[in-house]
Amino acid sequence: MSLGDFHDEGLLRQALTHRSAGRPNNERLEFFGDALLDLVISESLLERHPRADEGALTRMRASVVRESSLAGVARRLGLGNRLILGSGELKSGGYRRDSILADAVEAVIAAVYFDQGFDEARRRVLGWFAPELDRLNLDAGKDPKTRLQEWLQARQLALPEYELLSAEGPDHAQVFRVRCSLAAPQHAIEAVGGSRRAAEQSAAQQVLEQLEVPA
Amino acid sequence: MSLGDFHDEGLLRQALTHRSAGRPNNERLEFFGDALLDLVISESLLERHPRADEGALTRMRASVVRESSLAGVARRLGLGNRLILGSGELKSGGYRRDSILADAVEAVIAAVYFDQGFDEARRRVLGWFAPELDRLNLDAGKDPKTRLQEWLQARQLALPEYELLSAEGPDHAQVFRVRCSLAAPQHAIEAVGGSRRAAEQSAAQQVLEQLEVPA
Repeated sequence: MSLGDFHDEGLLRQALTHRSAGRPNNERLEFFGDALLDLVISESLLERHPRADEGALTRMRASVVRESSLAGVARRLGLGNRLILGSGELKSGGYRRDSILADAVEAVIAAVYFDQGFDEARRRVLGWFAPELDRLNLDAGKDPKTRLQEWLQARQLALPEYELLSAEGPDHAQVFRVRCSLAAPQHAIEAVGGSRRAAEQSAAQQVLEQLEVPA
Repeated sequence: MSLGDFHDEGLLRQALTHRSAGRPNNERLEFFGDALLDLVISESLLERHPRADEGALTRMRASVVRESSLAGVARRLGLGNRLILGSGELKSGGYRRDSILADAVEAVIAAVYFDQGFDEARRRVLGWFAPELDRLNLDAGKDPKTRLQEWLQARQLALPEYELLSAEGPDHAQVFRVRCSLAAPQHAIEAVGGSRRAAEQSAAQQVLEQLEVPA
Protein backbone atom coordinates (compact mmCIF):
# COMPACT_ATOMS: atom_id res chain seq x y z
CA MET A 1 0.00 0.00 0.00
CA SER A 2 1.39 3.37 -0.97
CA LEU A 3 0.81 7.00 -0.06
CA GLY A 4 1.06 8.01 -3.71
CA ASP A 5 2.66 11.09 -5.19
CA PHE A 6 2.25 14.72 -4.15
CA HIS A 7 2.86 17.69 -6.43
CA ASP A 8 3.44 19.86 -3.37
CA GLU A 9 5.67 17.93 -0.97
CA GLY A 10 5.34 20.78 1.55
CA LEU A 11 1.66 19.93 1.92
CA LEU A 12 2.50 16.31 2.74
CA ARG A 13 5.16 17.49 5.19
CA GLN A 14 2.61 19.70 6.94
CA ALA A 15 0.17 16.78 7.13
CA LEU A 16 2.82 14.71 8.92
CA THR A 17 3.76 17.48 11.38
CA HIS A 18 2.26 17.04 14.85
CA ARG A 19 1.46 20.18 16.82
CA SER A 20 4.26 19.29 19.28
CA ALA A 21 6.72 20.25 16.50
CA GLY A 22 5.37 23.82 16.21
CA ARG A 23 3.67 25.54 13.28
CA PRO A 24 2.57 25.01 10.58
CA ASN A 25 1.28 21.65 11.78
CA ASN A 26 -1.45 19.24 10.72
CA GLU A 27 -4.32 20.43 12.94
CA ARG A 28 -6.21 22.41 10.31
CA LEU A 29 -5.67 19.70 7.71
CA GLU A 30 -6.93 17.09 10.15
CA PHE A 31 -10.09 19.17 10.74
CA PHE A 32 -10.84 18.98 7.02
CA GLY A 33 -9.60 15.42 6.43
CA ASP A 34 -11.92 14.08 9.12
CA ALA A 35 -14.92 15.46 7.21
CA LEU A 36 -13.61 14.25 3.84
CA LEU A 37 -13.01 10.74 5.16
CA ASP A 38 -16.56 10.63 6.56
CA LEU A 39 -17.92 11.64 3.17
CA VAL A 40 -15.96 9.13 1.09
CA ILE A 41 -16.72 6.26 3.46
CA SER A 42 -20.41 7.27 3.54
CA GLU A 43 -20.67 7.15 -0.25
CA SER A 44 -18.97 3.77 -0.39
CA LEU A 45 -21.29 2.36 2.27
CA LEU A 46 -24.36 3.58 0.35
CA GLU A 47 -23.11 1.71 -2.74
CA ARG A 48 -22.05 -1.44 -0.90
CA HIS A 49 -25.15 -1.71 1.30
CA PRO A 50 -28.10 -0.67 -0.85
CA ARG A 51 -30.70 -1.78 1.69
CA ALA A 52 -29.02 -0.64 4.94
CA ASP A 53 -30.96 1.99 6.85
CA GLU A 54 -29.48 5.17 8.32
CA GLY A 55 -28.81 3.53 11.70
CA ALA A 56 -26.86 0.62 10.21
CA LEU A 57 -24.94 2.97 7.90
CA THR A 58 -24.01 5.19 10.84
CA ARG A 59 -22.77 2.20 12.87
CA MET A 60 -20.74 0.89 9.94
CA ARG A 61 -19.18 4.29 9.30
CA ALA A 62 -18.24 4.66 12.96
CA SER A 63 -16.56 1.27 12.79
CA VAL A 64 -14.51 2.18 9.69
CA VAL A 65 -13.37 5.61 10.88
CA ARG A 66 -12.72 4.78 14.52
CA GLU A 67 -9.31 5.72 15.88
CA SER A 68 -7.89 2.19 16.02
CA SER A 69 -8.93 1.58 12.43
CA LEU A 70 -7.30 4.80 11.23
CA ALA A 71 -4.14 3.96 13.16
CA GLY A 72 -4.05 0.60 11.37
CA VAL A 73 -4.22 2.36 8.00
CA ALA A 74 -1.43 4.72 9.12
CA ARG A 75 0.76 1.73 10.01
CA ARG A 76 0.10 0.03 6.66
CA LEU A 77 1.09 3.30 4.96
CA GLY A 78 4.27 3.49 7.06
CA LEU A 79 3.34 6.92 8.45
CA GLY A 80 4.85 6.26 11.91
CA ASN A 81 8.45 6.63 10.66
CA ARG A 82 7.61 9.79 8.72
CA LEU A 83 5.83 11.76 11.46
CA ILE A 84 7.43 15.03 12.47
CA LEU A 85 7.13 15.27 16.25
CA GLY A 86 8.41 17.59 18.97
CA SER A 87 11.14 16.19 21.20
CA GLY A 88 8.72 15.44 24.05
CA GLU A 89 6.48 13.28 21.87
CA LEU A 90 9.53 11.61 20.30
CA LYS A 91 10.85 10.53 23.69
CA SER A 92 7.48 9.25 24.86
CA GLY A 93 6.98 7.20 21.69
CA GLY A 94 4.30 9.44 20.17
CA TYR A 95 4.90 7.90 16.75
CA ARG A 96 3.31 4.73 18.06
CA ARG A 97 0.24 6.35 19.62
CA ASP A 98 -3.08 5.57 17.91
CA SER A 99 -4.40 9.10 18.32
CA ILE A 100 -1.39 10.75 16.66
CA LEU A 101 -1.35 8.20 13.83
CA ALA A 102 -5.11 8.58 13.26
CA ASP A 103 -4.85 12.37 13.10
CA ALA A 104 -1.99 12.08 10.60
CA VAL A 105 -4.05 9.84 8.28
CA GLU A 106 -6.87 12.38 8.28
CA ALA A 107 -4.43 15.21 7.58
CA VAL A 108 -2.83 13.26 4.71
CA ILE A 109 -6.28 12.71 3.17
CA ALA A 110 -6.84 16.48 3.27
CA ALA A 111 -3.41 17.05 1.74
CA VAL A 112 -4.30 14.84 -1.25
CA TYR A 113 -7.50 16.85 -1.72
CA PHE A 114 -5.74 20.21 -1.70
CA ASP A 115 -2.92 18.83 -3.86
CA GLN A 116 -4.94 16.94 -6.48
CA GLY A 117 -8.66 17.45 -5.94
CA PHE A 118 -11.72 15.53 -4.78
CA ASP A 119 -11.68 12.61 -7.24
CA GLU A 120 -8.07 11.68 -6.53
CA ALA A 121 -8.56 11.99 -2.75
CA ARG A 122 -11.61 9.71 -3.00
CA ARG A 123 -9.68 7.20 -5.10
CA ARG A 124 -6.82 6.95 -2.58
CA VAL A 125 -9.12 6.79 0.46
CA LEU A 126 -11.09 3.93 -1.09
CA GLY A 127 -7.85 2.06 -1.75
CA TRP A 128 -6.41 2.63 1.71
CA PHE A 129 -9.64 1.67 3.48
CA ALA A 130 -10.64 -1.26 1.23
CA PRO A 131 -9.75 -3.89 3.90
CA GLU A 132 -11.93 -2.12 6.49
CA LEU A 133 -14.82 -1.80 4.01
CA ASP A 134 -14.49 -5.42 2.86
CA ARG A 135 -14.51 -6.69 6.44
CA LEU A 136 -17.93 -5.08 6.96
CA ASN A 137 -19.25 -7.00 3.95
CA LEU A 138 -17.95 -10.28 5.33
CA ASP A 139 -19.47 -9.61 8.73
CA ALA A 140 -22.76 -8.45 7.24
CA GLY A 141 -23.10 -11.74 5.35
CA LYS A 142 -22.91 -13.81 8.52
CA ASP A 143 -25.84 -14.71 10.75
CA PRO A 144 -26.09 -13.12 14.21
CA LYS A 145 -25.12 -16.26 16.18
CA THR A 146 -21.92 -16.62 14.14
CA ARG A 147 -21.06 -12.93 14.48
CA LEU A 148 -21.66 -12.98 18.23
CA GLN A 149 -19.50 -16.12 18.62
CA GLU A 150 -16.66 -14.61 16.58
CA TRP A 151 -16.85 -11.30 18.42
CA LEU A 152 -16.54 -13.08 21.79
CA GLN A 153 -13.76 -15.41 20.57
CA ALA A 154 -11.75 -12.47 19.26
CA ARG A 155 -11.83 -11.06 22.81
CA GLN A 156 -11.18 -14.44 24.48
CA LEU A 157 -14.52 -14.27 26.26
CA ALA A 158 -16.79 -17.19 27.15
CA LEU A 159 -19.28 -18.26 24.46
CA PRO A 160 -23.01 -17.52 24.91
CA GLU A 161 -25.44 -20.06 26.32
CA TYR A 162 -28.79 -20.57 24.61
CA GLU A 163 -31.62 -22.02 26.70
CA LEU A 164 -35.05 -23.09 25.49
CA LEU A 165 -37.57 -21.58 27.90
CA SER A 166 -40.83 -22.70 26.30
CA ALA A 167 -42.46 -24.04 23.15
CA GLU A 168 -46.16 -23.29 22.98
CA GLY A 169 -49.05 -23.35 20.58
CA PRO A 170 -50.38 -25.87 18.04
CA ASP A 171 -47.88 -27.92 16.03
CA HIS A 172 -48.20 -25.87 12.83
CA ALA A 173 -47.73 -22.55 14.66
CA GLN A 174 -45.47 -23.22 17.62
CA VAL A 175 -43.75 -20.29 19.28
CA PHE A 176 -40.35 -20.91 20.81
CA ARG A 177 -38.95 -18.72 23.57
CA VAL A 178 -35.20 -18.85 24.22
CA ARG A 179 -32.74 -17.00 26.42
CA CYS A 180 -29.24 -16.03 25.31
CA SER A 181 -26.88 -15.44 28.26
CA LEU A 182 -23.38 -14.01 28.33
CA ALA A 183 -21.15 -14.35 31.39
CA ALA A 184 -18.97 -11.33 30.54
CA PRO A 185 -19.93 -8.72 29.56
CA GLN A 186 -23.05 -9.85 31.40
CA HIS A 187 -26.17 -9.88 29.22
CA ALA A 188 -29.36 -11.92 29.15
CA ILE A 189 -31.88 -11.48 26.37
CA GLU A 190 -35.08 -13.42 25.74
CA ALA A 191 -36.52 -13.69 22.25
CA VAL A 192 -39.26 -15.64 20.47
CA GLY A 193 -39.40 -17.19 17.03
CA GLY A 194 -41.23 -19.70 14.84
CA SER A 195 -38.37 -22.16 15.34
CA ARG A 196 -35.79 -22.68 18.04
CA ARG A 197 -33.09 -21.54 15.59
CA ALA A 198 -34.99 -18.37 14.62
CA ALA A 199 -35.50 -17.45 18.27
CA GLU A 200 -31.80 -17.99 19.00
CA GLN A 201 -30.76 -15.82 16.03
CA SER A 202 -33.11 -13.08 17.17
CA ALA A 203 -31.70 -13.19 20.71
CA ALA A 204 -28.10 -13.10 19.37
CA GLN A 205 -28.96 -10.10 17.17
CA GLN A 206 -30.31 -8.21 20.16
CA VAL A 207 -27.19 -9.01 22.19
CA LEU A 208 -25.03 -7.75 19.29
CA GLU A 209 -26.99 -4.50 19.32
CA GLN A 210 -26.58 -4.11 23.08
CA LEU A 211 -22.84 -4.67 22.67
CA GLU A 212 -22.88 -2.13 19.81
CA VAL A 213 -21.08 -4.52 17.49
CA PRO A 214 -21.17 -2.90 14.02
CA ALA A 215 -23.37 -4.72 11.51
CA MET B 1 -32.76 31.93 -2.94
CA SER B 2 -33.51 28.96 -5.17
CA LEU B 3 -33.17 25.19 -4.99
CA GLY B 4 -31.85 25.10 -8.56
CA ASP B 5 -32.60 22.52 -11.27
CA PHE B 6 -32.47 18.75 -11.03
CA HIS B 7 -31.96 16.43 -14.00
CA ASP B 8 -33.60 13.63 -12.03
CA GLU B 9 -36.68 15.04 -10.35
CA GLY B 10 -37.24 11.68 -8.68
CA LEU B 11 -34.09 12.20 -6.64
CA LEU B 12 -35.38 15.58 -5.40
CA ARG B 13 -38.73 13.99 -4.60
CA GLN B 14 -37.00 11.30 -2.55
CA ALA B 15 -34.97 13.96 -0.72
CA LEU B 16 -38.22 15.66 0.31
CA THR B 17 -39.92 12.44 1.46
CA HIS B 18 -39.97 11.98 5.23
CA ARG B 19 -39.89 8.42 6.54
CA SER B 20 -43.47 8.84 7.80
CA ALA B 21 -44.56 8.69 4.12
CA GLY B 22 -43.01 5.23 3.59
CA ARG B 23 -40.20 4.18 1.25
CA PRO B 24 -38.15 5.27 -0.57
CA ASN B 25 -37.61 8.18 1.80
CA ASN B 26 -34.81 10.64 2.53
CA GLU B 27 -33.02 8.79 5.36
CA ARG B 28 -30.12 7.41 3.32
CA LEU B 29 -29.71 10.69 1.45
CA GLU B 30 -29.67 12.58 4.74
CA PHE B 31 -26.92 10.26 6.03
CA PHE B 32 -24.75 11.29 3.08
CA GLY B 33 -25.82 14.94 2.91
CA ASP B 34 -24.86 15.49 6.54
CA ALA B 35 -21.26 14.45 5.74
CA LEU B 36 -21.18 16.48 2.51
CA LEU B 37 -22.44 19.61 4.27
CA ASP B 38 -19.76 19.21 6.96
CA LEU B 39 -17.10 18.97 4.27
CA VAL B 40 -18.19 21.99 2.23
CA ILE B 41 -18.58 24.18 5.32
CA SER B 42 -15.19 23.00 6.63
CA GLU B 43 -13.44 23.99 3.41
CA SER B 44 -15.10 27.40 3.40
CA LEU B 45 -14.12 28.01 7.03
CA LEU B 46 -10.48 27.14 6.26
CA GLU B 47 -10.49 29.73 3.48
CA ARG B 48 -12.36 32.41 5.42
CA HIS B 49 -10.41 32.01 8.68
CA PRO B 50 -6.78 31.35 7.72
CA ARG B 51 -5.50 31.70 11.28
CA ALA B 52 -8.27 29.91 13.20
CA ASP B 53 -7.14 26.80 15.06
CA GLU B 54 -8.91 23.45 15.01
CA GLY B 55 -10.97 24.26 18.11
CA ALA B 56 -12.29 27.54 16.70
CA LEU B 57 -13.02 25.90 13.34
CA THR B 58 -14.93 23.09 15.02
CA ARG B 59 -17.02 25.58 17.04
CA MET B 60 -17.78 27.65 13.94
CA ARG B 61 -18.79 24.58 11.93
CA ALA B 62 -21.09 23.40 14.72
CA SER B 63 -22.72 26.81 14.70
CA VAL B 64 -23.31 26.78 10.92
CA VAL B 65 -24.67 23.22 10.68
CA ARG B 66 -26.76 23.18 13.85
CA GLU B 67 -30.38 22.13 13.46
CA SER B 68 -31.91 25.59 13.87
CA SER B 69 -29.54 26.99 11.24
CA LEU B 70 -30.39 24.21 8.77
CA ALA B 71 -34.09 24.73 9.40
CA GLY B 72 -33.63 28.43 8.59
CA VAL B 73 -32.04 27.51 5.26
CA ALA B 74 -34.92 25.11 4.57
CA ARG B 75 -37.44 27.90 5.18
CA ARG B 76 -35.57 30.31 2.89
CA LEU B 77 -35.63 27.59 0.21
CA GLY B 78 -39.36 27.07 0.75
CA LEU B 79 -38.91 23.37 1.52
CA GLY B 80 -41.70 23.26 4.12
CA ASN B 81 -44.46 23.39 1.50
CA ARG B 82 -42.80 20.73 -0.64
CA LEU B 83 -42.14 18.09 2.04
CA ILE B 84 -43.85 14.74 1.51
CA LEU B 85 -45.09 13.60 4.93
CA GLY B 86 -47.23 10.76 6.26
CA SER B 87 -50.69 11.73 7.45
CA GLY B 88 -49.67 11.67 11.13
CA GLU B 89 -46.84 14.15 10.62
CA LEU B 90 -49.07 16.30 8.40
CA LYS B 91 -51.72 16.60 11.11
CA SER B 92 -49.18 17.41 13.80
CA GLY B 93 -47.53 20.14 11.70
CA GLY B 94 -44.35 18.18 10.90
CA TYR B 95 -43.59 20.52 8.00
CA ARG B 96 -42.83 23.21 10.54
CA ARG B 97 -40.56 21.12 12.78
CA ASP B 98 -36.88 22.10 12.79
CA SER B 99 -35.66 18.51 12.84
CA ILE B 100 -37.67 17.46 9.78
CA LEU B 101 -36.70 20.61 7.87
CA ALA B 102 -33.01 20.19 8.76
CA ASP B 103 -33.01 16.56 7.63
CA ALA B 104 -34.63 17.59 4.34
CA VAL B 105 -31.94 20.20 3.65
CA GLU B 106 -29.22 17.60 4.18
CA ALA B 107 -31.03 15.14 1.90
CA VAL B 108 -31.44 17.80 -0.81
CA ILE B 109 -27.70 18.51 -0.66
CA ALA B 110 -27.03 14.81 -1.23
CA ALA B 111 -29.53 14.80 -4.10
CA VAL B 112 -27.63 17.60 -5.86
CA TYR B 113 -24.41 15.61 -5.47
CA PHE B 114 -25.86 12.43 -6.95
CA ASP B 115 -27.63 14.43 -9.68
CA GLN B 116 -24.82 16.76 -10.73
CA GLY B 117 -21.61 15.94 -8.86
CA PHE B 118 -19.39 17.38 -6.17
CA ASP B 119 -18.59 20.80 -7.67
CA GLU B 120 -22.22 21.74 -8.27
CA ALA B 121 -23.26 20.50 -4.81
CA ARG B 122 -20.52 22.60 -3.26
CA ARG B 123 -21.54 25.65 -5.32
CA ARG B 124 -25.18 25.44 -4.16
CA VAL B 125 -24.31 24.76 -0.52
CA LEU B 126 -22.02 27.80 -0.41
CA GLY B 127 -24.83 29.93 -1.86
CA TRP B 128 -27.49 28.63 0.49
CA PHE B 129 -25.29 28.98 3.58
CA ALA B 130 -23.63 32.30 2.69
CA PRO B 131 -25.65 34.26 5.31
CA GLU B 132 -24.60 31.83 8.05
CA LEU B 133 -20.95 31.96 6.94
CA ASP B 134 -20.99 35.77 6.63
CA ARG B 135 -22.45 36.14 10.10
CA LEU B 136 -19.41 34.32 11.56
CA ASN B 137 -17.14 36.85 9.83
CA LEU B 138 -19.07 39.76 11.27
CA ASP B 139 -18.86 38.30 14.76
CA ALA B 140 -15.18 37.44 14.37
CA GLY B 141 -14.40 41.10 13.54
CA LYS B 142 -15.82 42.33 16.82
CA ASP B 143 -13.90 42.54 20.06
CA PRO B 144 -14.71 40.07 22.87
CA LYS B 145 -16.49 42.59 25.15
CA THR B 146 -18.83 43.59 22.30
CA ARG B 147 -19.51 39.98 21.33
CA LEU B 148 -20.23 39.00 24.93
CA GLN B 149 -22.56 41.98 25.37
CA GLU B 150 -24.45 41.16 22.16
CA TRP B 151 -24.68 37.47 23.00
CA LEU B 152 -26.23 38.30 26.40
CA GLN B 153 -28.57 40.96 24.97
CA ALA B 154 -29.83 38.55 22.31
CA ARG B 155 -30.87 36.23 25.17
CA GLN B 156 -32.26 39.05 27.32
CA LEU B 157 -29.72 38.31 30.05
CA ALA B 158 -28.08 40.81 32.39
CA LEU B 159 -24.89 42.47 31.11
CA PRO B 160 -21.50 41.51 32.59
CA GLU B 161 -19.86 43.49 35.38
CA TYR B 162 -16.17 44.35 35.13
CA GLU B 163 -14.31 45.08 38.37
CA LEU B 164 -10.74 46.35 38.72
CA LEU B 165 -9.09 44.17 41.37
CA SER B 166 -5.57 45.60 41.34
CA ALA B 167 -3.08 47.70 39.40
CA GLU B 168 0.51 46.91 40.32
CA GLY B 169 4.03 47.55 39.14
CA PRO B 170 5.92 50.65 38.00
CA ASP B 171 4.11 53.23 35.88
CA HIS B 172 5.61 52.11 32.56
CA ALA B 173 4.81 48.44 33.17
CA GLN B 174 1.65 48.32 35.23
CA VAL B 175 -0.32 45.09 35.36
CA PHE B 176 -4.08 45.36 35.73
CA ARG B 177 -6.17 42.54 37.15
CA VAL B 178 -9.92 42.59 36.50
CA ARG B 179 -12.84 40.30 37.16
CA CYS B 180 -15.69 39.77 34.70
CA SER B 181 -18.85 38.48 36.40
CA LEU B 182 -22.09 37.19 34.88
CA ALA B 183 -25.24 36.76 36.95
CA ALA B 184 -26.80 34.14 34.65
CA PRO B 185 -25.39 31.88 33.42
CA GLN B 186 -23.15 32.36 36.44
CA HIS B 187 -19.52 32.91 35.54
CA ALA B 188 -16.60 34.79 37.10
CA ILE B 189 -13.27 35.03 35.33
CA GLU B 190 -10.16 36.95 36.38
CA ALA B 191 -7.65 38.13 33.81
CA VAL B 192 -4.62 40.39 33.66
CA GLY B 193 -3.42 42.83 31.01
CA GLY B 194 -1.15 45.81 30.33
CA SER B 195 -4.19 48.11 30.45
CA ARG B 196 -7.54 47.94 32.14
CA ARG B 197 -9.17 47.59 28.73
CA ALA B 198 -6.85 44.74 27.66
CA ALA B 199 -7.53 42.85 30.87
CA GLU B 200 -11.29 43.28 30.41
CA GLN B 201 -11.11 42.03 26.81
CA SER B 202 -9.12 39.01 27.92
CA ALA B 203 -11.63 38.19 30.64
CA ALA B 204 -14.55 38.59 28.20
CA GLN B 205 -12.82 36.27 25.71
CA GLN B 206 -12.45 33.59 28.37
CA VAL B 207 -16.11 33.91 29.34
CA LEU B 208 -17.08 33.54 25.65
CA GLU B 209 -15.04 30.36 25.49
CA GLN B 210 -16.67 28.96 28.62
CA LEU B 211 -20.06 29.74 27.11
CA GLU B 212 -18.90 28.07 23.88
CA VAL B 213 -19.97 31.04 21.80
CA PRO B 214 -18.62 30.46 18.28
CA ALA B 215 -15.79 32.80 17.29
